[in-house]
Amino acid sequence: MAVTFADRPQFVLFGDSITQRSFDISGWGASLANRYCRKADVVLRGYSGYNTLWATFLLDRLFPVESSKPPLLVTVFFGANDAGFPDRGKEAQHVPLPEYKDNLRKIVAHLKKANVKHIVLISPPPVDEEALLVHGRALFGEEAGELPVREHQRTGLYAEAAESVARETGVLSLNLWSILQKTTDWQKFLNDGLHLSHEGNQEVFRNLVDILDDPSLKPSLQWQSFPWDYPEFDEIDYQNPAKSLQPDLKN
Amino acid sequence: MAVTFADRPQFVLFGDSITQRSFDISGWGASLANRYCRKADVVLRGYSGYNTLWATFLLDRLFPVESSKPPLLVTVFFGANDAGFPDRGKEAQHVPLPEYKDNLRKIVAHLKKANVKHIVLISPPPVDEEALLVHGRALFGEEAGELPVREHQRTGLYAEAAESVARETGVLSLNLWSILQKTTDWQKFLNDGLHLSHEGNQEVFRNLVDILDDPSLKPSLQWQSFPWDYPEFDEIDYQNPAKSLQPDLKN
Repeated sequence: MAVTFADRPQFVLFGDSITQRSFDISGWGASLANRYCRKADVVLRGYSGYNTLWATFLLDRLFPVESSKPPLLVTVFFGANDAGFPDRGKEAQHVPLPEYKDNLRKIVAHLKKANVKHIVLISPPPVDEEALLVHGRALFGEEAGELPVREHQRTGLYAEAAESVARETGVLSLNLWSILQKTTDWQKFLNDGLHLSHEGNQEVFRNLVDILDDPSLKPSLQWQSFPWDYPEFDEIDYQNPAKSLQPDLKN
Repeated sequence: MAVTFADRPQFVLFGDSITQRSFDISGWGASLANRYCRKADVVLRGYSGYNTLWATFLLDRLFPVESSKPPLLVTVFFGANDAGFPDRGKEAQHVPLPEYKDNLRKIVAHLKKANVKHIVLISPPPVDEEALLVHGRALFGEEAGELPVREHQRTGLYAEAAESVARETGVLSLNLWSILQKTTDWQKFLNDGLHLSHEGNQEVFRNLVDILDDPSLKPSLQWQSFPWDYPEFDEIDYQNPAKSLQPDLKN
């Protein structure tokens, strides 16, 4: 039996509220941490309400280029706020489509410079406009606008843009807007028209795992490819545990 | 508005399978990470099947005494394996009660030496012997023993021991064995007689939060006491985001 002491790689989840909330019950981030437990550390860097422009200001601090141990994987999951309508209360957060693409390019370029090996650009999910309006009225009553602050088709353009930047820069892509709609009743994947429901979180988790499990990725992100941090309990020589757990001591 | 760039403290969860699985759906670890998102990093160091003796061999590497940034909080959650019957298939994992206490003392002493500010000794949960036998038969059929490999009252002695070491060493204590039994149908907190069910995970989370929220703790572990990493989105000066997000640039 090979004794393993894994220097666990880091998977950093960088994004907006859909990332920030990803450790809530059934959350896709928590499920990723659970899958790679004892193999990789999943680090949460979600910033609710943020867009790609604001994200660019965070790069130097969150992903220092001179880091001696850059993350192995970073998921970049922005767009839901960028795609909001500037004339429907989203003036502050809105980012026009061409700038959204440019910001994504900047983020990818920075992460590459910081020696991040794998980047997944995750697009915003589809928008359930009906549910969004209902939710807005529940929150703001009479003051809620009559038009949704986000629209399904418009968000689709941002999703397409994220996918195209991924293609152009040679990084991984998860076009959630398209993929979730492969299920007819995709509205069940959202809980307020925008954020992920329990089912939606698990669907995102499954789709992300499909990407990470691609055997052609170099270096591999497959679960099997990571060493186990310390041996499994039934592999420990219990009559001489130091031999299994501190091999450097040459017991 | 004060711009905050939190140097997020680390909360490390150190324990056996009940810790290793704590990011599964509804898991207590994931819920802790979710509660402190954008405030603290919750790091998973669970080792399924491990006992306190084996845990002592991991200390130097997991909690180096010379670390420049020791965890602010470490939960130490062992005992379920230590308490297994050596003559019922648990010979390798069993640790006698006096040694269990000594190992906990060693772990606490090491963590203090490594400048960990807060330590919570979590005791093993109660054991549902009936469910454990049913589960054993489902796994091993005829080869399952007629007696449970763990017993409720015996595990209670280990829980009492963990609480007494916490008292003796002046660290925090969560006696799950006692606390979960305050609910009459406490068996619902377990899913195989030993590990936590969804309800059990959430109950552990709530009880742990009650401990962390104690206003007398110095330094505080209360949610409110930690700065928010980067300002909330609606506090960002969107006409000059650098001012909100990179104050060092003096825009």
